[in-house]
Amino acid sequence: MSDHVYKHITLTGSSTRSIEDAVQNALSRASATVKNMRWFQVTDTRGHIENNQIAHWQVTLEVGFTLEP
Amino acid sequence: MSDHVYKHITLTGSSTRSIEDAVQNALSRASATVKNMRWFQVTDTRGHIENNQIAHWQVTLEVGFTLEP
Amino acid sequence: MSDHVYKHITLTGSSTRSIEDAVQNALSRASATVKNMRWFQVTDTRGHIENNQIAHWQVTLEVGFTLEP
Amino acid sequence: MSDHVYKHITLTGSSTRSIEDAVQNALSRASATVKNMRWFQVTDTRGHIENNQIAHWQVTLEVGFTLEP
Amino acid sequence: MSDHVYKHITLTGSSTRSIEDAVQNALSRASATVKNMRWFQVTDTRGHIENNQIAHWQVTLEVGFTLEP
Amino acid sequence: MSDHVYKHITLTGSSTRSIEDAVQNALSRASATVKNMRWFQVTDTRGHIENNQIAHWQVTLEVGFTLEP
Amino acid sequence: MSDHVYKHITLTGSSTRSIEDAVQNALSRASATVKNMRWFQVTDTRGHIENNQIAHWQVTLEVGFTLEP
Amino acid sequence: MSDHVYKHITLTGSSTRSIEDAVQNALSRASATVKNMRWFQVTDTRGHIENNQIAHWQVTLEVGFTLEP
Amino acid sequence: MSDHVYKHITLTGSSTRSIEDAVQNALSRASATVKNMRWFQVTDTRGHIENNQIAHWQVTLEVGFTLEP
Amino acid sequence: MSDHVYKHITLTGSSTRSIEDAVQNALSRASATVKNMRWFQVTDTRGHIENNQIAHWQVTLEVGFTLEP
Amino acid sequence: MSDHVYKHITLTGSSTRSIEDAVQNALSRASATVKNMRWFQVTDTRGHIENNQIAHWQVTLEVGFTLEP
Amino acid sequence: MSDHVYKHITLTGSSTRSIEDAVQNALSRASATVKNMRWFQVTDTRGHIENNQIAHWQVTLEVGFTLEP
Repeated sequence: MSDHVYKHITLTGSSTRSIEDAVQNALSRASATVKNMRWFQVTDTRGHIENNQIAHWQVTLEVGFTLEP
Repeated sequence: MSDHVYKHITLTGSSTRSIEDAVQNALSRASATVKNMRWFQVTDTRGHIENNQIAHWQVTLEVGFTLEP
Repeated sequence: MSDHVYKHITLTGSSTRSIEDAVQNALSRASATVKNMRWFQVTDTRGHIENNQIAHWQVTLEVGFTLEP
Repeated sequence: MSDHVYKHITLTGSSTRSIEDAVQNALSRASATVKNMRWFQVTDTRGHIENNQIAHWQVTLEVGFTLEP
Repeated sequence: MSDHVYKHITLTGSSTRSIEDAVQNALSRASATVKNMRWFQVTDTRGHIENNQIAHWQVTLEVGFTLEP
Repeated sequence: MSDHVYKHITLTGSSTRSIEDAVQNALSRASATVKNMRWFQVTDTRGHIENNQIAHWQVTLEVGFTLEP
Repeated sequence: MSDHVYKHITLTGSSTRSIEDAVQNALSRASATVKNMRWFQVTDTRGHIENNQIAHWQVTLEVGFTLEP
Repeated sequence: MSDHVYKHITLTGSSTRSIEDAVQNALSRASATVKNMRWFQVTDTRGHIENNQIAHWQVTLEVGFTLEP
Repeated sequence: MSDHVYKHITLTGSSTRSIEDAVQNALSRASATVKNMRWFQVTDTRGHIENNQIAHWQVTLEVGFTLEP
Repeated sequence: MSDHVYKHITLTGSSTRSIEDAVQNALSRASATVKNMRWFQVTDTRGHIENNQIAHWQVTLEVGFTLEP
Repeated sequence: MSDHVYKHITLTGSSTRSIEDAVQNALSRASATVKNMRWFQVTDTRGHIENNQIAHWQVTLEVGFTLEP
Repeated sequence: MSDHVYKHITLTGSSTRSIEDAVQNALSRASATVKNMRWFQVTDTRGHIENNQIAHWQVTLEVGFTLEP
């Protein structure tokens, strides 16, 4: 592991259901173009309100993936 | 949207079930006196412990609502 | 309550299911050696990714417990 | 001045023209219901983009006003 | 306690005598219009200087009060 | 809006005229390769000094753009 | 001093009288089990309110003590 | 450039017109006693309000200048 | 007040008695060389411990003074 | 320099030897795909431990490179 | 790895030679009483000065170790 | 030590070799005009890149020195 180099990207995913689901949605969409994702860190948790209800969650995450040697 | 003015308030809601539920409880209670709530941001996630179990979650959120022109 | 003294410790728990479950797992493991835990605050929410899926959540929390007089 | 008590509120104003104008727009709208505003501090500067141009600025500010004795 | 919802407000109080006194002055003035105040957190400690002496302290605090169900 | 996924990038633009102009310069240059930019947040405001005058402003901004489904 | 190793712990002490007294109460209680305490840093200053009065102060401090060689 | 040593100072300038002008006013006044100023970073943006209008801006900046070898 | 320029300096004062006294001690010592001090902000509150007692407080403050036109 | 636009990326490099070496390793790997790197800022310094020894350093850095006009 | 629970402790180590050496010194001393240390994060880098020379480095680190199941 | 008053200054030193060397270079240059320097804290670690190599390190430090009584 000592010779790994990671690049970090920042994503915001959304979900009408939960914080966990918003994270997974961001990862699924990003996986079309980003390979070798290894870890994430949640950096912001927000949401939109409609009629006094949580309409959807918006979760921002930093994602690390390995750069090929 | 460019002529909106928002006011922010800060609330702490609680729930025995989940982080998401504590946010919804805060919004539901505040809706009695606050109209036009549009978005929220979670700023603190805490909880109380009884007998080594999570007794309830306490989630603090900043809420934005539009000021009537 | 005014004569309580609390000591804080920091833990990281993990779970394949949810943020809430990772917190409970940390508390359950710590309860073997720490008594009188009263509250916690989530300070970091991370996770590991395998095959573009959340493999498990890692949640860091500060926990306060009362020191016996 | 030593016996003043201030209450703080947080506002977000917007403008298609400048940061300064967004702050003034927030103050003008709030003045309908808030009296004795004395100072502000800018805490966030954001904006929306349309066709690669800044469509409008959104500036968040904390405002202090004196509470009547 | 698990069904409490708190609203937070921010105040700045002042005193020529001490930090503690500036906090109490803010609470006393706010109590004319805010009921059910439960806790506070000091977020800024400042002061004015005249003739190289502390002329008065200015202490900013966030205050939580319960919203009636 | 609930199924949007955003990617964030960070840019620094410069201008001899104003903060607002430095932001627009960054967006204009980035638009050659980045599509669907939606919002920005200013995270740093700096500048260079020559002969005691502001020679140019350097403004750092985080930009969000939608990832195509 | 150059070969000292310190361990840090975090405590919250309380007092009905003052911030200073809350710090001393935390140190006195901790001294039953922690030896060689050298310095502290105040990291949070809170309190509880009853009948619009400060009921007690709660002060959180990080404490450093030397590890025996 | 690799053998430069910079000293930093912090200034607050004001202006009735704009953020940019408040920065330039601080630099102009400081230039009477500080030589070789090279860069600045804005660290706080505040203002005073009179009759619901921005009366003047107060902008705090950190300034770096080279120490003569 | 709109044409004032302030310079900020940072000081650490100490006292065996209280936080307030440590601030005053820093201002008194600095007044030998710094004129026109107007305000301060406490940025750090620490102390040394001897025999489980607070031996002295060390308080760091940022001080603003007006630059002569 | 006043018409430069920079893009920032975030990398984590590792090394068994030193913090400086971990930074250089990240730059060397990234240089395969990123041109015109101009500056970096260290934002996190971590490491892994094996048998009570530092096994390798992991250093996170933000890197700025110029966007071609 | 998904069922690990980590406890964090905070240490300050010192060295007359380098930042890296101060970290290793902290780990070596702590290893007498702490088992299963896995990672560290540097959170503060300070030092003492004598005769205008760095006399020794003082580096603070958070260390994570696994709690036995 | 309880009657010491410290003044803090901020410096940025550089070196082609290491972080430690950049700190020492800042202290050596400052010692021409600043006496009684006692401690420092590293607050920023940056560097310039040429041809994908670290060209030099730039380290910012806060330095405390005693004010003569």
